[in-house]
Amino acid sequence: MPELRKDPVTGRWVIISTGRRKRPNDFRVERAVAIGRECCPFCPGHEDLTPPEVLAYRLNGAAANGPGWDVRVVPNKFPALEVEGGLDREGEGMFDRMNGIGAHEVIIETPAHDRTFATMSEAEIVRVLWAFRERVQDLKQDRRLQYILIFKNHGAPAGATIEHTHSQLIALPIVPDFVREELEGAKRHFKAKERCVFCDIIRQELADGRRVVLENADIVAVAPYAPRLPFETWLVPRRHGARFEEAPRHEYESLSRLLKALLMRVDRALESPAYNLIVHTAPFAEEGDDMYHWHVELMPKLTRTAGFEWGTGFYINPTSPEEATRVLRDVRL
Amino acid sequence: MPELRKDPVTGRWVIISTGRRKRPNDFRVERAVAIGRECCPFCPGHEDLTPPEVLAYRLNGAAANGPGWDVRVVPNKFPALEVEGGLDREGEGMFDRMNGIGAHEVIIETPAHDRTFATMSEAEIVRVLWAFRERVQDLKQDRRLQYILIFKNHGAPAGATIEHTHSQLIALPIVPDFVREELEGAKRHFKAKERCVFCDIIRQELADGRRVVLENADIVAVAPYAPRLPFETWLVPRRHGARFEEAPRHEYESLSRLLKALLMRVDRALESPAYNLIVHTAPFAEEGDDMYHWHVELMPKLTRTAGFEWGTGFYINPTSPEEATRVLRDVRL
Repeated sequence: MPELRKDPVTGRWVIISTGRRKRPNDFRVERAVAIGRECCPFCPGHEDLTPPEVLAYRLNGAAANGPGWDVRVVPNKFPALEVEGGLDREGEGMFDRMNGIGAHEVIIETPAHDRTFATMSEAEIVRVLWAFRERVQDLKQDRRLQYILIFKNHGAPAGATIEHTHSQLIALPIVPDFVREELEGAKRHFKAKERCVFCDIIRQELADGRRVVLENADIVAVAPYAPRLPFETWLVPRRHGARFEEAPRHEYESLSRLLKALLMRVDRALESPAYNLIVHTAPFAEEGDDMYHWHVELMPKLTRTAGFEWGTGFYINPTSPEEATRVLRDVRL
Repeated sequence: MPELRKDPVTGRWVIISTGRRKRPNDFRVERAVAIGRECCPFCPGHEDLTPPEVLAYRLNGAAANGPGWDVRVVPNKFPALEVEGGLDREGEGMFDRMNGIGAHEVIIETPAHDRTFATMSEAEIVRVLWAFRERVQDLKQDRRLQYILIFKNHGAPAGATIEHTHSQLIALPIVPDFVREELEGAKRHFKAKERCVFCDIIRQELADGRRVVLENADIVAVAPYAPRLPFETWLVPRRHGARFEEAPRHEYESLSRLLKALLMRVDRALESPAYNLIVHTAPFAEEGDDMYHWHVELMPKLTRTAGFEWGTGFYINPTSPEEATRVLRDVRL
């Protein structure tokens, strides 16, 4: 059974999930071998290589767990958390732990092996976002859970081990540290100003313009003022809303359009880098929907020097957000 | 001039240091080419390839900036921060910035090109720790500075760009986020218990034993209860003390002995992995030396899957600290 453990100094929760390693004694560098097309468990016709689907969009009325789907969601074959059981929160002296209860699912975004958000159509990306929404709406019924982390690892340096484009979802009985930090900051700002900090950021960025990469009717893509990484970009809805899963459909459509446009520019300007995409949304039980503002963060994985940042949580960024914005805006597609 | 910028949501400071990139338009993946022995700027006889030294230990009375040294400290040739100037703290609307004032130095730990803490003698490592101490004591006189981050990137995946073993020191006008978090946690614990949280951890770990990797008269090497990464190890002094630079000499001696023993085991068990070593110490101006406890953290860089953790600050660790402890204790040297 995986475990959740809390660091007694910082209060940070981590998942200790020993079942995911292939061999018990293999502590060496995991050389991520991207699984190619031949034996791809995410390609149509290979549905038996994954656990049975929990959601799929099929236009043609074909049977579950066979070909004919457009988007398919399955439990992760090597889950970081397990669905069955009780949390069994307990102390070990001064330490705190609970069972690693939760869900770990894979969203297979397209039947086509080699498409990405940059090459998929906007309608296809909307379907993926809708699948995110449906899975969150379903999983949040489970009272053991507090947060659902939706993310994409694109490329081996960003943690992907399967080539075929997919996202992941981890439903957690705790709120991850980075969300807690954002929430606390948003609360501080709200207490001082009675305004949402993200709404204030968007207002100032649109007036200033130097860090606005792209925008459309609903979404603004900005390079944040203090980016941790070169070309870090946030996609923030103009309209205030704390929860991704409660956004109106037109926001998903606008987000799809902007995501595709942004990733096409990133691919062109930076030679198709690895990246992580992360949905930031309010925890289920959190009060104060006035304070938090859902958004999506793109973290390209460009510099090897990030080795240091990764160990310390302290960031030295060689590219200013104003420069990154200029580069992305100037891309000729 | 580099800049320090504060994220308006989380309060996290980052350094935007555009001068460190080789070519202004090169945003592509930086392929860290380790500089080999032939043109190594850190080897004896090549002293003119670095800026003039700020500290060196020479037994033979040889002249500065020539061969004959045992440890040599020089300013970083491509500094993330600059020494000259005023902080010029200012707002840009809701954002906060200041000039990137500070120091960025390199501690060349040995004249031998291919030695590491695992192969250097304990006496040699003590000299390096003493050089850290002397540089901190000197730089903390500068009232613009609040914190000195001492760290080692070992191996290209951990961010090293020069092979020859060295550490770095970055003196900052702010307190890095990860230190601030530890301080806040340590204060919470002290408020509740009137005891240092690290002293409590050491006491419980020594009584329990399952996560004690190594220990000697002054220092205990423990796998933390909630490690972010496989084989993360903390070296914590038994005696309470908030500041690395005020430790008694025998603690440096004990730390050297334990560091060397630990890294020999890590090299053997994990095939000489890349790693970051980070000194955690109290900020200069911080009150409450009762609450914080200096220590050193070793973060081996083993898993490629860390791509995800690196983008999110959310950790899934496939190796339990109890298992890591067993593996390191069982190494036959």
